[in-house]
Amino acid sequence: MAVVAFIGLGNMGGPMAVNLLKSGHQVCVHDLMPAAVDLLVAEGAQSAASATACVEGADFVISMLPASRHVEGLYLGEEGLLQSIAPETVIIDSSTIDADSARKVAAAAAEFGIAMLDAPVSGGVTAAAAGTLAFMCGGDAETFSMARSVLEDMGKNIFHAGDHGAGQVAKACNNMLLAIHMIGSSEALRLGADNGLDPAVLSEIMLASSGRNWSLEVYNPYPGVMDTAPASNNYQPGFMVDLMVKDLGLAMDCAVGSGSSTPLGSMARSLYAAHAANGNGDRDFSSILEVLGQ
Amino acid sequence: MAVVAFIGLGNMGGPMAVNLLKSGHQVCVHDLMPAAVDLLVAEGAQSAASATACVEGADFVISMLPASRHVEGLYLGEEGLLQSIAPETVIIDSSTIDADSARKVAAAAAEFGIAMLDAPVSGGVTAAAAGTLAFMCGGDAETFSMARSVLEDMGKNIFHAGDHGAGQVAKACNNMLLAIHMIGSSEALRLGADNGLDPAVLSEIMLASSGRNWSLEVYNPYPGVMDTAPASNNYQPGFMVDLMVKDLGLAMDCAVGSGSSTPLGSMARSLYAAHAANGNGDRDFSSILEVLGQ
Amino acid sequence: MAVVAFIGLGNMGGPMAVNLLKSGHQVCVHDLMPAAVDLLVAEGAQSAASATACVEGADFVISMLPASRHVEGLYLGEEGLLQSIAPETVIIDSSTIDADSARKVAAAAAEFGIAMLDAPVSGGVTAAAAGTLAFMCGGDAETFSMARSVLEDMGKNIFHAGDHGAGQVAKACNNMLLAIHMIGSSEALRLGADNGLDPAVLSEIMLASSGRNWSLEVYNPYPGVMDTAPASNNYQPGFMVDLMVKDLGLAMDCAVGSGSSTPLGSMARSLYAAHAANGNGDRDFSSILEVLGQ
Amino acid sequence: MAVVAFIGLGNMGGPMAVNLLKSGHQVCVHDLMPAAVDLLVAEGAQSAASATACVEGADFVISMLPASRHVEGLYLGEEGLLQSIAPETVIIDSSTIDADSARKVAAAAAEFGIAMLDAPVSGGVTAAAAGTLAFMCGGDAETFSMARSVLEDMGKNIFHAGDHGAGQVAKACNNMLLAIHMIGSSEALRLGADNGLDPAVLSEIMLASSGRNWSLEVYNPYPGVMDTAPASNNYQPGFMVDLMVKDLGLAMDCAVGSGSSTPLGSMARSLYAAHAANGNGDRDFSSILEVLGQ
Repeated sequence: MAVVAFIGLGNMGGPMAVNLLKSGHQVCVHDLMPAAVDLLVAEGAQSAASATACVEGADFVISMLPASRHVEGLYLGEEGLLQSIAPETVIIDSSTIDADSARKVAAAAAEFGIAMLDAPVSGGVTAAAAGTLAFMCGGDAETFSMARSVLEDMGKNIFHAGDHGAGQVAKACNNMLLAIHMIGSSEALRLGADNGLDPAVLSEIMLASSGRNWSLEVYNPYPGVMDTAPASNNYQPGFMVDLMVKDLGLAMDCAVGSGSSTPLGSMARSLYAAHAANGNGDRDFSSILEVLGQ
Repeated sequence: MAVVAFIGLGNMGGPMAVNLLKSGHQVCVHDLMPAAVDLLVAEGAQSAASATACVEGADFVISMLPASRHVEGLYLGEEGLLQSIAPETVIIDSSTIDADSARKVAAAAAEFGIAMLDAPVSGGVTAAAAGTLAFMCGGDAETFSMARSVLEDMGKNIFHAGDHGAGQVAKACNNMLLAIHMIGSSEALRLGADNGLDPAVLSEIMLASSGRNWSLEVYNPYPGVMDTAPASNNYQPGFMVDLMVKDLGLAMDCAVGSGSSTPLGSMARSLYAAHAANGNGDRDFSSILEVLGQ
Repeated sequence: MAVVAFIGLGNMGGPMAVNLLKSGHQVCVHDLMPAAVDLLVAEGAQSAASATACVEGADFVISMLPASRHVEGLYLGEEGLLQSIAPETVIIDSSTIDADSARKVAAAAAEFGIAMLDAPVSGGVTAAAAGTLAFMCGGDAETFSMARSVLEDMGKNIFHAGDHGAGQVAKACNNMLLAIHMIGSSEALRLGADNGLDPAVLSEIMLASSGRNWSLEVYNPYPGVMDTAPASNNYQPGFMVDLMVKDLGLAMDCAVGSGSSTPLGSMARSLYAAHAANGNGDRDFSSILEVLGQ
Repeated sequence: MAVVAFIGLGNMGGPMAVNLLKSGHQVCVHDLMPAAVDLLVAEGAQSAASATACVEGADFVISMLPASRHVEGLYLGEEGLLQSIAPETVIIDSSTIDADSARKVAAAAAEFGIAMLDAPVSGGVTAAAAGTLAFMCGGDAETFSMARSVLEDMGKNIFHAGDHGAGQVAKACNNMLLAIHMIGSSEALRLGADNGLDPAVLSEIMLASSGRNWSLEVYNPYPGVMDTAPASNNYQPGFMVDLMVKDLGLAMDCAVGSGSSTPLGSMARSLYAAHAANGNGDRDFSSILEVLGQ
């Protein structure tokens, strides 16, 4: 079992840290919200007065933060954690941030002799609690293999996407594709319904045909077709529109940076951005169906 | 076993008629191309001097033709087949045509007391030969249940989509969604490759994550990722770009008719139309990846 | 001066017929709404018990109807006007309908030896009243030159776009382009405002630069920038969203028919269709700005 | 007359500096390419061994560089020019860069007590030579008014867009709108031609109607319609596809940063990026017509 410092105990980080405790790891936690820390202490974690104190003696430092600026703020600069982390430690950053930022922090860590992985996750709050997240990792093969067993205590599918930043790129690509088939499935169901078809019957047909995709399989956006889906629960998230806008922004950053053409992905970002700007940012992302007409 | 008149023996109709013969039905065939007729006669079919002679005494008339104008030309008008078909016969039109045209022919048939289904298929030439087509049927429940056993001799998934025209609408919706996730998968793979990822690794990651869809599962558009896919065989079809342009045109007809918003489906049509207009009409539809940059 | 039969006295047809009266033509009018007829009779028009009676002795028959089915219903069939119109008469159909339908009616007229123009207009209610409409005409050069002086009594710019149907195609192309730069101008102004710019200043800059277009010149979609624009009057039409959806549908019919790629035009149709489906059909089309976020 | 240091003598910067000399200013120039410097010295400019030497005693420092990293590299850091520029000097950066970068450099300059404007230009090489550029300026009103007379010696329309960065935002908005109506005009002309219209006639009609825009007025993308346009000269630039891809990337950076929805602008970037990726980066941007089919 390992000694783990876990920084960032939000909706995702909290249950991830709990799963590490359940697997028998010794976990020291840190968060700006005392209540989040207390919750983990009640589950058996230690707490520390500061992030710096927290990482002392850790085999792994895992961070789960909202955005690039938080990750850069945590690790870089004269008061950054890289000044305090011992060289044999492995840093796993599971935040979803832009690939350039991930590469920048990994390069800075390398100057201190510290190995690092970018390891964003897929699966949401439910998978975080169930320990069935997918991890998409960027970094060298040796670091990936050192981190694997710890990641397996929090997730089910652990992928090595490539070098530093590749985990972030993989997640951006995946979530862009998710947005596309969610909107596409919404369009197909709306078009069918507008032409007299029962969305449940049409869903069944497309699931057995070449239209099949994850949105139709587990997350049908048409109210009433799938009892467990957010669409049947007034689009309570689930995965919020605002988070999809963020992820599509990261995909567009990649695309602009590499000069890649992403016609449907770009359109998806604009449709989600419009949906958020019209007051739907905190609803489930499958509510994009309503943009097509209510 | 039934007496079947089968009209239209092209790439799809030919193997469908063969499967009816293999199941023991008595099949009379008709096509404008004598060679196509000869092929079926060699398999045990009867031929007739005309479509009118062919339908005499048939329990089922099945047609598989290129476009609306052929279907309307076959059945309607003073020399149309509806004048000759006996009232107890069931007509199954498996052509992919616009829903309005399907409704128009069905209404004309009803005036002669003849029951009709629109029953377009999904699965392509391979599934036609293997007898594993999906049929999406529009018409009343009684006609659907009469036709079912014959359809099962040619296909695996037999769906009742709804009333007359609903089969065509279901196919248009499905193929629009197929076009969307094919382009979306192409964008995601191109974006990943442009940012240093191995498309095979990225495909594996997205297949295990929320980006999963039929294109990634069985028809990967990136050359070299999937040996059996057209992408790894210089985009030999498979399913031609020209046919996808046709199907997306039918989807747009539906959308314009019902005033439905189909942002990604409309974009898919324009991208495929541009691809065809630039000389790629007879290549496999997964070659849309090249539109994004070669 | 000519004898004119004018059929269809709606928001556009009414003031057009008035302008013919003002120019000294002898005008017989027909409409299903008695009140519309009464209005014209008060201005000096004659009325007739039926469309058939109305066209008797006319040099020109002008029709201004809502959609293809009305135009086909008026002229074609056993009770259609073509049966009654004298061969030396010129028919001018100013309805906005699909080009195929325009060609079909013109071909039927030709069989009766009657010359016909499709002549849809641009400019809206204001231009109809002011007699400053643009007419986009399809038909042969001789017919165009016969009709010209009558058209000049209702409009300012009289164009010969080409053969039968070309007037409809020209209008579809123009209005598609109008929709595109209206949305594009809205995006640019919203993007600027979201980044701190004053929309009035940005409008002035773009008007003097390469972004210049008709929307910015006379129809600014940002509230408060241009006093006379619908945007500054709570998006009172002006030109209704529902009419733009109709016109973009006609453009899509053209594009699907000819296999043309219209990526931005298609997107424009879907954005306007969504805007209409969300309850904005009777507002001015410049309200599309609100789709981007309020 | 003023003492001006001019840094960056490329296709745009060179002729801009020449115009300052013609107006009687004392100009010291600097560029990494000796040939570019020699050209200006031949016109009467002074040269300096380094950028630092060049700015000594200058009333205005004007820079015209390819991208953000060059501008940040020139001014910021321990060896940056801000260390050498006297506080009463006004810096005018006419490079087209992202707004955040412009704000960052202006803020750094302010710490040294140096006033700065971002002042990107519109009009291209022709307008640079003719002294008819448009300048879109971001900064405070006092600095703008100090810089105005110098800018008027290089341009015709001098706009104060707003605070620091606003010049860059205004240019990004304008060029996004330019890309949109260029593609839209191409779609309309292609659609018309595909349906039998003469592109020259259709252009004339749309110019006199609500489709009117700058692309149709001075830069028609259809070969043969406008003799002076790049389209009639095999799409020789003019304004290169690669530069439009860059400008649309800057617009997308703005849009992602502010969460703005830009459906047509995003599509324009993806279409131009695909066009560049297919080998057309150095052709004129009006060649986007060919993407729709040749």
